[in-house]
Amino acid sequence: MRFVTAQKGEQTIIGIMIQDGSKVLDLHEAEKAMNSHSTLPRTMNECLDLGDLFIEKVSAIEEWASGHNDGDYIIELAEVVLKAPIPRPRKNVFCVGKNYADHAIEMGSAADIPEHVMLFSKAPTSVVGTEETILHHDHVTRQLDYEGELAVIIGKKGKRIAEEDAFDYVFGYTILNDITARDLQDKHKQFLLGKSLDTSCPMGPYIAHKSIIPNPANLRIETKVNGEVRQSGNTDQFIFSIEKIISVISQGTTLEPGDIIATGTPAGVGKGFKPPRFLNKGDEIEISVEGLGTLKNTIEQ
Amino acid sequence: MRFVTAQKGEQTIIGIMIQDGSKVLDLHEAEKAMNSHSTLPRTMNECLDLGDLFIEKVSAIEEWASGHNDGDYIIELAEVVLKAPIPRPRKNVFCVGKNYADHAIEMGSAADIPEHVMLFSKAPTSVVGTEETILHHDHVTRQLDYEGELAVIIGKKGKRIAEEDAFDYVFGYTILNDITARDLQDKHKQFLLGKSLDTSCPMGPYIAHKSIIPNPANLRIETKVNGEVRQSGNTDQFIFSIEKIISVISQGTTLEPGDIIATGTPAGVGKGFKPPRFLNKGDEIEISVEGLGTLKNTIEQ
Repeated sequence: MRFVTAQKGEQTIIGIMIQDGSKVLDLHEAEKAMNSHSTLPRTMNECLDLGDLFIEKVSAIEEWASGHNDGDYIIELAEVVLKAPIPRPRKNVFCVGKNYADHAIEMGSAADIPEHVMLFSKAPTSVVGTEETILHHDHVTRQLDYEGELAVIIGKKGKRIAEEDAFDYVFGYTILNDITARDLQDKHKQFLLGKSLDTSCPMGPYIAHKSIIPNPANLRIETKVNGEVRQSGNTDQFIFSIEKIISVISQGTTLEPGDIIATGTPAGVGKGFKPPRFLNKGDEIEISVEGLGTLKNTIEQ
Repeated sequence: MRFVTAQKGEQTIIGIMIQDGSKVLDLHEAEKAMNSHSTLPRTMNECLDLGDLFIEKVSAIEEWASGHNDGDYIIELAEVVLKAPIPRPRKNVFCVGKNYADHAIEMGSAADIPEHVMLFSKAPTSVVGTEETILHHDHVTRQLDYEGELAVIIGKKGKRIAEEDAFDYVFGYTILNDITARDLQDKHKQFLLGKSLDTSCPMGPYIAHKSIIPNPANLRIETKVNGEVRQSGNTDQFIFSIEKIISVISQGTTLEPGDIIATGTPAGVGKGFKPPRFLNKGDEIEISVEGLGTLKNTIEQ
């Protein structure tokens, strides 16, 4: 199942993509048509709070709708505007730094390959969806950069999670562009500010449920800028596995449904080029991860 | 006005302290007694969303209650349990690192005095109130440390805020203990994990509205551990002023009502002693800031 948050006229809907992604099933309306009332919440965060019950409800709705495929709960993809699947996270996005050795080296040297998981965060105000415009912020930065990443969506509250249990706490996966102002990142030492500019966290286009991504540790990831491939990696290059990251964070910090963990970016960011190739107004960035579609955003003109 | 979030039996109430802090005025119940219905939201975050209207409503309620001081909307302080004034922030707490020169030096050397505001964050899951127990987390850290701080509560949405306008965006102030696992802070390079252990963000006991703190740039701040003074500073020692911090963050990142900015800690943290004096089970930490009362917490036994 591929979950979306989408704008349909004035309404924000929670849906799943159906018919090869050409249509969206409006879960709230479909449940109403099926049962004459809907029990599903109106936001992805609240849906994720339901835990396994959410998937049970959606499975039942999907099955019913497959035999009742002519209702107005089935919407052409072109008739909605996709938003970030979680448009407003309830806390900052957790981000892993330098989780691909080649990227750590391009940012400095082999000495930059971390021994322990490096974690920083992005403010929830930075989140936007696919196709949304990224602000250039040229009044504060001259070094706006892209970072294509696989993001993990947590589906269950947990603390002191053992690595072997980590996937029990995962709901699914999406793509995240960890847009970074390199000059602010350096100037302010800690990364928060350079990572939290408004619109600097494009996310989407959908959340793939973990059931359709059997091996997240082997996914091709590619970033293009204006059609040119800049990053080409695979999550099999992770220094720290998803299980390890979840276990490390949760040793002292409770993870909750709706939490987002960006797992780091492969080599090929703008700063890694000599000379560096930062983002300019009008640039189009496309990040594709195997099984997760393509997240596409353009820098404001 | 001094605002509290408090537990009264099963209910969470929003109140102001009255009669020299010996009593709490339950704003919702008082408004109901005054107008036969209440328009105030039930959480501090939603109250702050109201902007100036919140203060107008509270002023009217407070004035009415001063002439009607025998209702059950007036509660003995001893009959409620204070919670963190914002028990669940909607994003990570913004924290300024090394904002007192003496503290920067005790953490390293004069070379550690920052040229630019250093910003990191604490997860919302770390927030607790005064008198709540702090977990010792000895399965992940051997170096739990205290940091007494003045925290600023934002009351109005804003971006690219000029320093001269910064106080328009401030709602008030509270005390915050930026509990830090020094070993995790070092090990993971970026501060997020070492700063985000559950219960590592005690906050309170109340939010003082800015109207009763005319000069936040000159407040004595003192931290005691088991009665012994460890930190004794004054916010006049800030390297970066509140106006500067608000302006710097908001250049690219929208600030919102309910945002919390911890302004940094003076010298005297446990790590600064030779040998270091980290927190042990049973230790009692009291942080007092002029005009803001005392935030008191004990490490679990």
